[in-house]
Amino acid sequence: MRDVAIVGVAQTKFGELWNASFRDLVVEAGVNAIQDANMSGDSIDAMYIGNMSGGLFVGQEHIGALIAEHSGLAPIPVTRVEAACASGGLALRQAIMAVASGFYDKVVAAGVEKMTDVVDATPAIAAASDQEWEAQQGVTFPSLYAMMARRHMYEYGTTREQLAAFAVLDHENGSLNPKAQFQNKITVEKVLNSTPVAKPMNLLDCSPVSDGAAAVVVCPAEDAHKYTDTPIYVQASTQASDTIALHSRKSITTLEATVNASRKAYDIAGIKPNQIDVAEVHDCFSINGLLAIEDLGFFEKGKGGQAIEEGLIARNSEVSVNTSGGLKARGHPLGATGLAQAAEVTWQLRGDADKRQVDGAEIGLTHNVGGTGGTVAIHILSRDQKL
Amino acid sequence: MRDVAIVGVAQTKFGELWNASFRDLVVEAGVNAIQDANMSGDSIDAMYIGNMSGGLFVGQEHIGALIAEHSGLAPIPVTRVEAACASGGLALRQAIMAVASGFYDKVVAAGVEKMTDVVDATPAIAAASDQEWEAQQGVTFPSLYAMMARRHMYEYGTTREQLAAFAVLDHENGSLNPKAQFQNKITVEKVLNSTPVAKPMNLLDCSPVSDGAAAVVVCPAEDAHKYTDTPIYVQASTQASDTIALHSRKSITTLEATVNASRKAYDIAGIKPNQIDVAEVHDCFSINGLLAIEDLGFFEKGKGGQAIEEGLIARNSEVSVNTSGGLKARGHPLGATGLAQAAEVTWQLRGDADKRQVDGAEIGLTHNVGGTGGTVAIHILSRDQKL
Repeated sequence: MRDVAIVGVAQTKFGELWNASFRDLVVEAGVNAIQDANMSGDSIDAMYIGNMSGGLFVGQEHIGALIAEHSGLAPIPVTRVEAACASGGLALRQAIMAVASGFYDKVVAAGVEKMTDVVDATPAIAAASDQEWEAQQGVTFPSLYAMMARRHMYEYGTTREQLAAFAVLDHENGSLNPKAQFQNKITVEKVLNSTPVAKPMNLLDCSPVSDGAAAVVVCPAEDAHKYTDTPIYVQASTQASDTIALHSRKSITTLEATVNASRKAYDIAGIKPNQIDVAEVHDCFSINGLLAIEDLGFFEKGKGGQAIEEGLIARNSEVSVNTSGGLKARGHPLGATGLAQAAEVTWQLRGDADKRQVDGAEIGLTHNVGGTGGTVAIHILSRDQKL
Repeated sequence: MRDVAIVGVAQTKFGELWNASFRDLVVEAGVNAIQDANMSGDSIDAMYIGNMSGGLFVGQEHIGALIAEHSGLAPIPVTRVEAACASGGLALRQAIMAVASGFYDKVVAAGVEKMTDVVDATPAIAAASDQEWEAQQGVTFPSLYAMMARRHMYEYGTTREQLAAFAVLDHENGSLNPKAQFQNKITVEKVLNSTPVAKPMNLLDCSPVSDGAAAVVVCPAEDAHKYTDTPIYVQASTQASDTIALHSRKSITTLEATVNASRKAYDIAGIKPNQIDVAEVHDCFSINGLLAIEDLGFFEKGKGGQAIEEGLIARNSEVSVNTSGGLKARGHPLGATGLAQAAEVTWQLRGDADKRQVDGAEIGLTHNVGGTGGTVAIHILSRDQKL
């Protein structure tokens, strides 16, 4: 297998984008990523699109052909990949495999979701859970994650304030990210006083409904310097599955798929979790950010809340988590998230993250979760080719 | 890149399967394919699922995790791939790439659709066309293909009877396939007298709404004899895109994506179209079967109708087309079709096709179309590893 490098990244503004259609968003991100890679569109060999539910949000399937036409990239192969909110991470992974295998040399992975064109996004989002055993019984995503939060509080003494502190961190970072949906700072008090959604979680514990797209261009590592002075190298690309239904799990305070995929990724990259400088973790709800920093091995199980409270995941601390603002503040257009994470880590490792730049960031990780952890994709990226 | 072989295949019965759920169907096909490969489930490394619209047909996205759980295959990576009715062909292609690259050694590609759980399947199917420029204007798939048929009749003098003859051939073959949705023979007269759907196409020109699943197991060619005495070798796996919207094409009597993907496949395999013994082509409507045998290079453009009429695509003729019954008679559960095609060609090349066996079939082709040709996947398979 060939080594693979990221040579171009882009993200649209995330938010309620009334003036842009589904196809506009993904083409904007794709074109900008190709330009960032100093390539011409007609040299691209293939494209992968991460999208959770074009069907339920905008009545559109056959996303690959739609984008092939609207981007002018036809007749190249364009393939849509879906794994709920991990769709973007899996699209990136397929692009990496396509290059590693030697099938293609220049591949774009793009992610997109247009969620604000429906009156109520909840039923579409619920299609990421088990339709027969969860969604049809009236369980929504906030309530699934609320159960996980309650259990974590019960088992480990995690406090309501510690959960809120994750959202506060996200907004602190998001305030420095001009592409973030929310660029305002918030406080623990404000989270605790926000509208209850599913106890113990309030509105400010929950990532928003968002429109947006992001894209990444990959090529063989040996060619990377043709396109950029600062290629970022893919050290590992892993994926694990777990039950789609929360009730089928042994524990609901650990995402086994995060543990499986990240341990495999550390092995492949030959590093330990404490070598990660910057990490974009999947905080669709504040509890999931907390579970992530434990399950990724940054902190012991049960100690995540304390770590947040003590500032150990702030910028330039032990591990700089969600410098982009995370799903909570950057926004969470489902299929785009995994690629927005890869774009942020790339900017950090290049030294291009402007006001939110982490000093001397050399190794970064992205953690992209589908549903309540039925799918997890992990990528480890680095500034140096050899670690 | 490593050579890849097919060592296991399976297909559920296609039809209106009221007693089986979405998840039951794909697990039945997957388990049977793994057994056909003489493997144990816990040795499988990864799985790809082809599915067009779990979201619109059964309210379920996150198909990979659903199948990972229900098949007991978690924590292995399970990835859903979508390209409308070409979803199955693309899932097979990703599985082949995953093995060719060296990422995995034993990979299952499965395809599934459960279409009969909705009152009207038409709006879901229409999501394969351009939602904004076609579906919302009231254009349905039968009407899109009807325009192509009319134009072909105008340009090349193709007759109504010649189109009907394609459906008659499908039913003739389907009558010998115990897994086909329709196992009755029909006549040209019966097609011409069936209910009009979109002129010139009648009910019996149109593939049905179907439930079903199919699966294929692939491994490195060098390992294939560990699992079976009759491995079938993948000589080429290609994919091309075209505009999703029919009105954007230069011509509506040629699927450019079929031409592009098949020419590339013939080049990679080092063969000419006339070396294909058996071909499963994507006849969602009789006109598309006719376009396929022209665009694949079996017959000159404009001569397809005559070829059908003269029996040149019947079993044991110049090229044996749709020995399974094709989409028209075997049935067309959208995401499953590409894998059912691969299963049929595998059975033919193994010599396992029972009453519908073609004499001495050595090289086969599958042709899987998304929408009106926005995506096409081609696979060339063979009995001998070296051609």
